[in-house]
Amino acid sequence: MQHPVFEVFSVPLASWSSSARSLIDVATGRAPADLLVRNGRWVNVHSGEILPGHDVAIVAGRFAAIDPDLSYTIGANTQIIDAAGRYMVPGLCDAHMHVESGMVTVTEFCRAVIPHGTTSMFIDPHEIANVLGIKGVRLMHDEAAAMPVSVYVQAPSCVPSAPGLETPGATISPDDVAEMLSWPNIIGLGEMMNFPGVAANDEKMLAEIAHTQRAGKTVGGHYASPDLGKPFYGYVAGGPADDHEGTRMEDAIARVRLGMRSMLRLGSAWFDVAAQVKAITEAGLDSRNFVLCTDDSHSGTLVNEGHMDRVVRHAIACGLKPITAIQMASLNTATHFGLEREMGSITPGRRADLILTSDLATLPIELVIGQGTVLAENGVLTAPLEPWPYPDFAKNTVRLGRQLTAEAFEIKAPSGRNAVTARVIGVIENQAGTRALERTLPVEDGLVAVDAAQDVCQIALVERHVGSGAVVNALVSGFGYNIDCAVASTVAHDSHQMIVVGTNRDDMALAANRLGEVGGGAIVVSKGKVLALVELPIAGLMSDERAEIVAKKADSLVAAMRQCGCTLNNAFMQHSLLALVVIPELRISDKGLIDVRTFTPTELFV
Amino acid sequence: MQHPVFEVFSVPLASWSSSARSLIDVATGRAPADLLVRNGRWVNVHSGEILPGHDVAIVAGRFAAIDPDLSYTIGANTQIIDAAGRYMVPGLCDAHMHVESGMVTVTEFCRAVIPHGTTSMFIDPHEIANVLGIKGVRLMHDEAAAMPVSVYVQAPSCVPSAPGLETPGATISPDDVAEMLSWPNIIGLGEMMNFPGVAANDEKMLAEIAHTQRAGKTVGGHYASPDLGKPFYGYVAGGPADDHEGTRMEDAIARVRLGMRSMLRLGSAWFDVAAQVKAITEAGLDSRNFVLCTDDSHSGTLVNEGHMDRVVRHAIACGLKPITAIQMASLNTATHFGLEREMGSITPGRRADLILTSDLATLPIELVIGQGTVLAENGVLTAPLEPWPYPDFAKNTVRLGRQLTAEAFEIKAPSGRNAVTARVIGVIENQAGTRALERTLPVEDGLVAVDAAQDVCQIALVERHVGSGAVVNALVSGFGYNIDCAVASTVAHDSHQMIVVGTNRDDMALAANRLGEVGGGAIVVSKGKVLALVELPIAGLMSDERAEIVAKKADSLVAAMRQCGCTLNNAFMQHSLLALVVIPELRISDKGLIDVRTFTPTELFV
Repeated sequence: MQHPVFEVFSVPLASWSSSARSLIDVATGRAPADLLVRNGRWVNVHSGEILPGHDVAIVAGRFAAIDPDLSYTIGANTQIIDAAGRYMVPGLCDAHMHVESGMVTVTEFCRAVIPHGTTSMFIDPHEIANVLGIKGVRLMHDEAAAMPVSVYVQAPSCVPSAPGLETPGATISPDDVAEMLSWPNIIGLGEMMNFPGVAANDEKMLAEIAHTQRAGKTVGGHYASPDLGKPFYGYVAGGPADDHEGTRMEDAIARVRLGMRSMLRLGSAWFDVAAQVKAITEAGLDSRNFVLCTDDSHSGTLVNEGHMDRVVRHAIACGLKPITAIQMASLNTATHFGLEREMGSITPGRRADLILTSDLATLPIELVIGQGTVLAENGVLTAPLEPWPYPDFAKNTVRLGRQLTAEAFEIKAPSGRNAVTARVIGVIENQAGTRALERTLPVEDGLVAVDAAQDVCQIALVERHVGSGAVVNALVSGFGYNIDCAVASTVAHDSHQMIVVGTNRDDMALAANRLGEVGGGAIVVSKGKVLALVELPIAGLMSDERAEIVAKKADSLVAAMRQCGCTLNNAFMQHSLLALVVIPELRISDKGLIDVRTFTPTELFV
Repeated sequence: MQHPVFEVFSVPLASWSSSARSLIDVATGRAPADLLVRNGRWVNVHSGEILPGHDVAIVAGRFAAIDPDLSYTIGANTQIIDAAGRYMVPGLCDAHMHVESGMVTVTEFCRAVIPHGTTSMFIDPHEIANVLGIKGVRLMHDEAAAMPVSVYVQAPSCVPSAPGLETPGATISPDDVAEMLSWPNIIGLGEMMNFPGVAANDEKMLAEIAHTQRAGKTVGGHYASPDLGKPFYGYVAGGPADDHEGTRMEDAIARVRLGMRSMLRLGSAWFDVAAQVKAITEAGLDSRNFVLCTDDSHSGTLVNEGHMDRVVRHAIACGLKPITAIQMASLNTATHFGLEREMGSITPGRRADLILTSDLATLPIELVIGQGTVLAENGVLTAPLEPWPYPDFAKNTVRLGRQLTAEAFEIKAPSGRNAVTARVIGVIENQAGTRALERTLPVEDGLVAVDAAQDVCQIALVERHVGSGAVVNALVSGFGYNIDCAVASTVAHDSHQMIVVGTNRDDMALAANRLGEVGGGAIVVSKGKVLALVELPIAGLMSDERAEIVAKKADSLVAAMRQCGCTLNNAFMQHSLLALVVIPELRISDKGLIDVRTFTPTELFV
């Protein structure tokens, strides 16, 4: 089964073997370098040394030679950069991340992070896969392959995340995984989130892992449980090669001891480095099997705080030696994905990805070279990078099937009751988990009424993939909305249906309809007026604008949520996770209210 | 181009993905283990820790789980081994070696080294390739695949080693390499010995490297020069991923800094660990890119001193921490060859290769498990291992084309001379290099005479691959032969023609003819009598007997050489290297006398 439609638009860099003649000619002095970086401190991630006074010669986008004096590689057209004693650091790698979390395209993500020194990313486009399936993955795969930095793609493994409990816009089968593995830019299997399935010998999950192992590629892991006993052993025996879901030192230790790579994560809302890095700094484990990643970065984080430079700085601040932290964002990552001879160090033959910085601990990113070209200087992208066009089919994914009215959001009480006791999704501050609450609510005109005093408002799951017009209504507590308002989003992990939360049914209808008009995104409405809107027309997940614009709109969205009474730290993230039917205790899906303690649908009324 | 004749006879172990269900079932307690090793000290090469009190459960030849108490994996048929607090060490890996150096088959090599704890070998059959070409490689490849331990094969890269200066029995082309890379048990390209060729952009060498890189496999290196400048840079830029030819600390450091793996070698006659390990113990380099290997082990070494256990012990004696030395013979090797998820550690999914030892520094090998089966205990192989039959075509490779007589070895002097000044190959004690000497020798009956006073005797290169009957005669100094005698060998690196050294032409003829009769080997003759004979019928390189028998015969061969006056330390090795036309200064080949300082043929008489 060969995918018929898409082609990789461009592969910017020739292979080492195709460029070997040029590399050898430059190394031996028979031909001039394209680019020569002079007099830098060579941060050598293979030997663990920092070696002052070195030149680095680059040709055909790859490192050709490193020596204290490479003046013999200078020709008439050789570009020369004076490192002036600064550190030459390998370009930074993000070992696991979802571009969609930035709500921008791969191109705009690159535009945002290249000035921060990121030159390699391993992306798992499982959000778009839930909307557009393998065709969506291919879109991002092709875009990734055209970037001036290395963006490798992991084939999404768990779409839907909870089969039978939700309906995403598309599904991915073991055959789909096999097909994706044949694409040129696929580096392995995306995070295998169905950890109970693996430990239970789930046939489809094992088939996806088997396809990946047979292709000689890396199986991404995701073991989100504190149980390090039998369920963990079963998962490890099933084949996942890494995990970024650890949060405690013992999680990191357990993973490394059993031969996985421990990915330490610092995302916009994940803070898992500090505790786990103690496996190295305190427990003294060999650092080679630790890797840094972000998993999920919002545009605001990218624009205001950085990307892998932020993670490396943080890891150093947590007590790692700078060279160790840099290894964990370069060579260790490359080794993990079988790319040790292709990237991750400043050594001959590798992709010429190099950062100049004047301080290893604070890591100011002063110059960024990607595949032999200067891409950014002092925080500014200097290389041309055209916006990437997405086809129409990727921009028309919000199908409501009808104009929604307030009636669609009515929750009818059992007849004759003036109060009901209902199950309510309880948001927990700073946690992804929810509580299965029960609350007694008034009934007005036969309809269950929201109750600001108890901080209970409505939540609706609006079917948006096939236009069935279906709306599932339920209740949620914890947002603090205290005026007439509604917040809607087509970012709704993992199925990415539409979630509408609100205190007023007219506002809920308006919010949903408006998102339908703009092709998806996130919106805050109050009393018939739009307070904030982030348009995300690509699959209802991503903007086609730049990260700084998306970041500003996202800020205004959160400000509008606050204006409506919400005081949560990660208000929009909490909103967008309420349909994630794999994390306990209570969630909403197109199948109804789901009790994730038992993985079964449950009734709204007790 | 698909090789038409041979098939892999057996692949003893199912893949991780094929065995995943069993592994998961054992790990989670749903099914019993095949084998449980209890209460051992887990030498964890991933974390760098030694963890007492652990059980290791094995099923389907792979590790399923490791935990302080795996009693839940015990079933009615579970074999239980009490480690009684001993260390559980991953089976040892030899990262680069030639089985032919032991003069035995792969099977007999395994029989000899498994009791020493070797469970993985990366073999480069370039000796048999010089005799039988790709067909010979396939024979050893198929034998390797049938072993109860992991024997991966590197595709020989440089056959002949010196094109144009010698005629081997077969040649290997880039197309041959491409074909070999398609075989199931080929792990990469064998040592790329033509280092000047790589640095000079030799088309064939680059094509072989390119085929290997494109196949995602490892390019073996061999850079045998002390020049760490441009020629080295050119070689590294060409793609070789490792090197075992370093001898000095600076060699190891240079290789690791440039992104190669430094293979530290302790062979029967190579002692390259002590100096280079200081790159770690004194210069403080990260040890992860260092690997241990033997390259060439004689049967006597295997039988009397050991194999990788000897190397690890030696590395520890040189100052390495035991865990570091063990990493260099397990995980580091596996990582280098892209096999980190397949072997090299005691972790779930990997081949269950495990040694029990009561002391990490002296490393007594008390029990050896290979792929889940107990193979050896206390130095004795306990598993059945049938001798491997080689086909007739591999056993009829010595073709002299005629019965040789003393006349064939006559060196005619220019007419009318009673003395001549001739070029003489000068053997150097304890070195592989030779000197280009000049000696004045008497002429008797028109023939150049040997001269024991000057320690000059005859050397002949007898064509033995195609039966041309050709004999090239020349002179050699340094063996010390002082009676009528001859020593002949079909082990004659790298072309493996026949080398005959002697003081008496009748003995030379007898020695050559006798080797022709037995299908090759090595022989010492004196005054018409055979003093010692090692039959090596397989390609004229390998015995079909066991290593201990071959070792005894080789001992008697060396004893016979001594009896004839030879006092060299590695007498037979010196003999067998005299046709190695890639190491300066003067060598013999079927093309005549070769000046290896200029890589050109030269005249016998000055």
